Amino acid sequence: MNEEIDHDTVAHAMQPEDTPELRKLYAGFEAENLIPLWTQVGDLMPMHPKPRAVPHVWKWSRILPLAQASGDLVPVGRGGERRALGLANPGLGGNAYVSPTLWAAIQYLGPRETAPEHRHSQNAFRFVVEGEGVWTVVNGDPVRMSRGDLLLTPGWNFHGHHNDTDQPMAWIDGLDIPFSQHNDVGFFEFGSDRVTDYATPNFSRSERLWCHPGLRPLSGLADTVSSPIGAYRWEHTDRALTEQLLLEDEGQPATAAPGHAAIRYTNPTTGGDVMPTIRCEFHRLRGGSATAPRRKVGSSVF
Amino acid sequence: MNEEIDHDTVAHAMQPEDTPELRKLYAGFEAENLIPLWTQVGDLMPMHPKPRAVPHVWKWSRILPLAQASGDLVPVGRGGERRALGLANPGLGGNAYVSPTLWAAIQYLGPRETAPEHRHSQNAFRFVVEGEGVWTVVNGDPVRMSRGDLLLTPGWNFHGHHNDTDQPMAWIDGLDIPFSQHNDVGFFEFGSDRVTDYATPNFSRSERLWCHPGLRPLSGLADTVSSPIGAYRWEHTDRALTEQLLLEDEGQPATAAPGHAAIRYTNPTTGGDVMPTIRCEFHRLRGGSATAPRRKVGSSVF
Amino acid sequence: MNEEIDHDTVAHAMQPEDTPELRKLYAGFEAENLIPLWTQVGDLMPMHPKPRAVPHVWKWSRILPLAQASGDLVPVGRGGERRALGLANPGLGGNAYVSPTLWAAIQYLGPRETAPEHRHSQNAFRFVVEGEGVWTVVNGDPVRMSRGDLLLTPGWNFHGHHNDTDQPMAWIDGLDIPFSQHNDVGFFEFGSDRVTDYATPNFSRSERLWCHPGLRPLSGLADTVSSPIGAYRWEHTDRALTEQLLLEDEGQPATAAPGHAAIRYTNPTTGGDVMPTIRCEFHRLRGGSATAPRRKVGSSVF
Amino acid sequence: MNEEIDHDTVAHAMQPEDTPELRKLYAGFEAENLIPLWTQVGDLMPMHPKPRAVPHVWKWSRILPLAQASGDLVPVGRGGERRALGLANPGLGGNAYVSPTLWAAIQYLGPRETAPEHRHSQNAFRFVVEGEGVWTVVNGDPVRMSRGDLLLTPGWNFHGHHNDTDQPMAWIDGLDIPFSQHNDVGFFEFGSDRVTDYATPNFSRSERLWCHPGLRPLSGLADTVSSPIGAYRWEHTDRALTEQLLLEDEGQPATAAPGHAAIRYTNPTTGGDVMPTIRCEFHRLRGGSATAPRRKVGSSVF
Repeated sequence: MNEEIDHDTVAHAMQPEDTPELRKLYAGFEAENLIPLWTQVGDLMPMHPKPRAVPHVWKWSRILPLAQASGDLVPVGRGGERRALGLANPGLGGNAYVSPTLWAAIQYLGPRETAPEHRHSQNAFRFVVEGEGVWTVVNGDPVRMSRGDLLLTPGWNFHGHHNDTDQPMAWIDGLDIPFSQHNDVGFFEFGSDRVTDYATPNFSRSERLWCHPGLRPLSGLADTVSSPIGAYRWEHTDRALTEQLLLEDEGQPATAAPGHAAIRYTNPTTGGDVMPTIRCEFHRLRGGSATAPRRKVGSSVF
Repeated sequence: MNEEIDHDTVAHAMQPEDTPELRKLYAGFEAENLIPLWTQVGDLMPMHPKPRAVPHVWKWSRILPLAQASGDLVPVGRGGERRALGLANPGLGGNAYVSPTLWAAIQYLGPRETAPEHRHSQNAFRFVVEGEGVWTVVNGDPVRMSRGDLLLTPGWNFHGHHNDTDQPMAWIDGLDIPFSQHNDVGFFEFGSDRVTDYATPNFSRSERLWCHPGLRPLSGLADTVSSPIGAYRWEHTDRALTEQLLLEDEGQPATAAPGHAAIRYTNPTTGGDVMPTIRCEFHRLRGGSATAPRRKVGSSVF
Repeated sequence: MNEEIDHDTVAHAMQPEDTPELRKLYAGFEAENLIPLWTQVGDLMPMHPKPRAVPHVWKWSRILPLAQASGDLVPVGRGGERRALGLANPGLGGNAYVSPTLWAAIQYLGPRETAPEHRHSQNAFRFVVEGEGVWTVVNGDPVRMSRGDLLLTPGWNFHGHHNDTDQPMAWIDGLDIPFSQHNDVGFFEFGSDRVTDYATPNFSRSERLWCHPGLRPLSGLADTVSSPIGAYRWEHTDRALTEQLLLEDEGQPATAAPGHAAIRYTNPTTGGDVMPTIRCEFHRLRGGSATAPRRKVGSSVF
Repeated sequence: MNEEIDHDTVAHAMQPEDTPELRKLYAGFEAENLIPLWTQVGDLMPMHPKPRAVPHVWKWSRILPLAQASGDLVPVGRGGERRALGLANPGLGGNAYVSPTLWAAIQYLGPRETAPEHRHSQNAFRFVVEGEGVWTVVNGDPVRMSRGDLLLTPGWNFHGHHNDTDQPMAWIDGLDIPFSQHNDVGFFEFGSDRVTDYATPNFSRSERLWCHPGLRPLSGLADTVSSPIGAYRWEHTDRALTEQLLLEDEGQPATAAPGHAAIRYTNPTTGGDVMPTIRCEFHRLRGGSATAPRRKVGSSVF
């Protein structure tokens, strides 16, 4: 990429003289719903991405109290659906978008509360920063939510949450709402006002069928677009990252880079990403190690 | 889908009472760049897509004269890059987007003119409604443009156009500019101010290598993300559609539906779509036949 | 690969002493249907492939008269099914195998004769060395056979042949009979004693639907295991090879190697091979050019 | 399939009269290495597979003593390579083939013995029926072998075994030796006369990197032809099968059929089979349950 020149800095062979004829032409364009490329090519086709989204840190310590206050003032239920606080990227003009493609939020569920069931074409994941006691019920399968777990709700699966304890719980939600909205592909449907199963098993049925390393049930030989696993447990993620760093200590190839352990959450039916629009990974940096700078397109939430 | 209820029509369990405490809470949200889901879930996650883009017909007979007038008043060259008139969907608020993901335009090149070479990550196709005499030079390969042809310029291939005749020529351009812009993945680079090869061969090198039905050069066994074919000729498209309707007359399965012949342009290395973001097809309806109504997401330009 | 040592030349730590106990042990093996690895590892797992098949040339000028004589003496019909002379590789011990995986033959059909319809799980192709006038009818679709054409009959398609002229015709058949036999996967079924359609169209329906370069019928969007194309015409093969050599003359990358034009016949739904067990290619060497020696596993018929 | 008729039972239109001319013709065939199809079509292309392999049971209780006697009489080492007793299918004429495509054996390693390292293009798996104490070292990675484990040695990986205990151990080997031999693709190379690492870790490096359910190391994003997992542990297999039967008891879809739990061992990079030529599964039938009869091609070893 030649970073030195830009559309605006070249000799503008296409800056026509401002004449009455030109003004008439431009009026004709407007009447016919036409917009010439030459007046806006630099905006439509920039030399490199010029994202409006900006890097921003939301402090758990500052947003958790607001979530707690919401718990006192705002009942959870049908209509609003979830007591969730969307992280609004300061560069994105007041939309509740954390990036041009992702919506991320802190969701809060009070003691004994239920967030009613619904489904939508948007894909969702949840990540538990702290706490426990909530089960998310995905297509009737109750999935325990605990610290460090990644939970999936791929598009068009009914899901609701309920808190089985006397303590509130908060976690992070991630959805492809902006991507879905830009591409006009969002559908939504209400389900039960309660969750369909209030059982609180330690492991979901999805885990009991699918979470045996390298083993695939013969009843599940058809590949699926999204992962059939409802919960990726912290116990496994932590062990995988720990082993990578130990293997590095032993001189074995294992880490993504020196001091940098990393896993990608995958769909066991294909070995690929968990959902069609969202990639999920977990990275662990050894204390004192540094990662190489890199430039890439696409947006990430850490 | 239950079309009867909507987010706005259910009992709003999550419409909290407007109290000083709530106002303070909402002010806290704003200070921390948070937006609650419950105040806008219906906008973020509609019951079904609510596209702003509207159906609209641009008449060739009305926009061609404007393109011709542009030819007189606006020189083609570096900066604006192309004498192209983008079709601005009336529902999309003044952007030069024909749909939420596509940009489409009529491009006009006067006698003996050259549109300079550049490349961009956006994928492009051209379709020739009428005329001839222009060659588009894609990565150094001159490709003749004639009536009914579909021409491809997949992302990051250098390309320019030149008119080898004393007559102007106009055609349709299609690019994934809006999609690229929403996802912040656009790159652009200038190339030669002229085209790199002014030869005017009847067939491009890409066609000479790849346009033999079912035959793949051994020098091209690696699959490519986009089609290696620079031009899909009208002669082939027309014959394929004609044969489908003749086969239908003979009682053979061939058409997409009764009276409805259709082909998809494909990448011969995979049998899939020509480019990662744009699907190209040609449909021909027998006079008097009707197609079934259908509802789908995604946007199309006919 | 260390070519110097072999199983037989190493110090045989596993050549046990011939004692009564050992003989009793070996008798015990035999009684229990056991064979020790150490007595035959060199045969079971050679240092490198030791094919029994040998290179051999069958002269068209010598086998064609025998085929003609067969035409006089042996009627074609049910039971033997085809007047085909299998090329028996001299190294393969009297089996009609041209290689460990392939069966190849010259097939001969006299004036106005019909080879009756049948189908089998074995995959077949035909290649026409000279002559014309026969149509092969594949699942009811009459396919003209002419000089230089490659014709496909993928597994389990009904097919028969008929000669529409007063001249005999001979061609080459290739099938995966040995591969099918080794793996016990052969099925066979009789069809009509005649062919189901005696029409003699210039182009088969499969060609009319599929042989338009890069164009896929919307009625054929499902990928198929084998190519839907019944005939790959010499006209296209010849042109593709000619263009490759011309492009090479122009300094363009096109040939497989200097002076060596080559195409692979492909399945247009995937870009891959025409049939699951047989790869078909056509190679043309410029006069005086040489190809690099190469070593590979697998067997080829040229 | 019409099972009633056969090649031999139809009116043999192609049984030509035995005349001096015919005898001369057949002599000509022989001289030119030709074999007519019509004299052997029923053998080459049977109406349905006629496998020579027969069902046979080898009793562990009868072959283990023979393996033990081999341990006393036959030293393990270079040349024979392994103290393995191949199961010779009684229908396959004295070859050490358990089926037309598979070789299976009981391998026996005495106290403190080492089977030297080698590699071959044939794919191998081991399954441990009973015992423990042996480590197989695959490309330098020591893999513990314990009861119920499935161990993989995909083609061209160096591997040797050593017994770290004072007890002998026996297990089952499975290789694609016949398939490799029919297709002339076998290569073999000697490695170290010892194993390259006598460590006895509880878990191989392959497991530490790959055996975390649904988690893929970022250092391993390239798909591999065979599974990177060296050992599929009985603990996981047993739990997966147990959970399937429990889920069935709870009325949930989980088993392959009523009372029939089953898993397929998979390559986590693709979700597909562990090796290109061998499929590995584990089936558990609930006591008293019956499986449906089925007919299929291909051979299986239970």
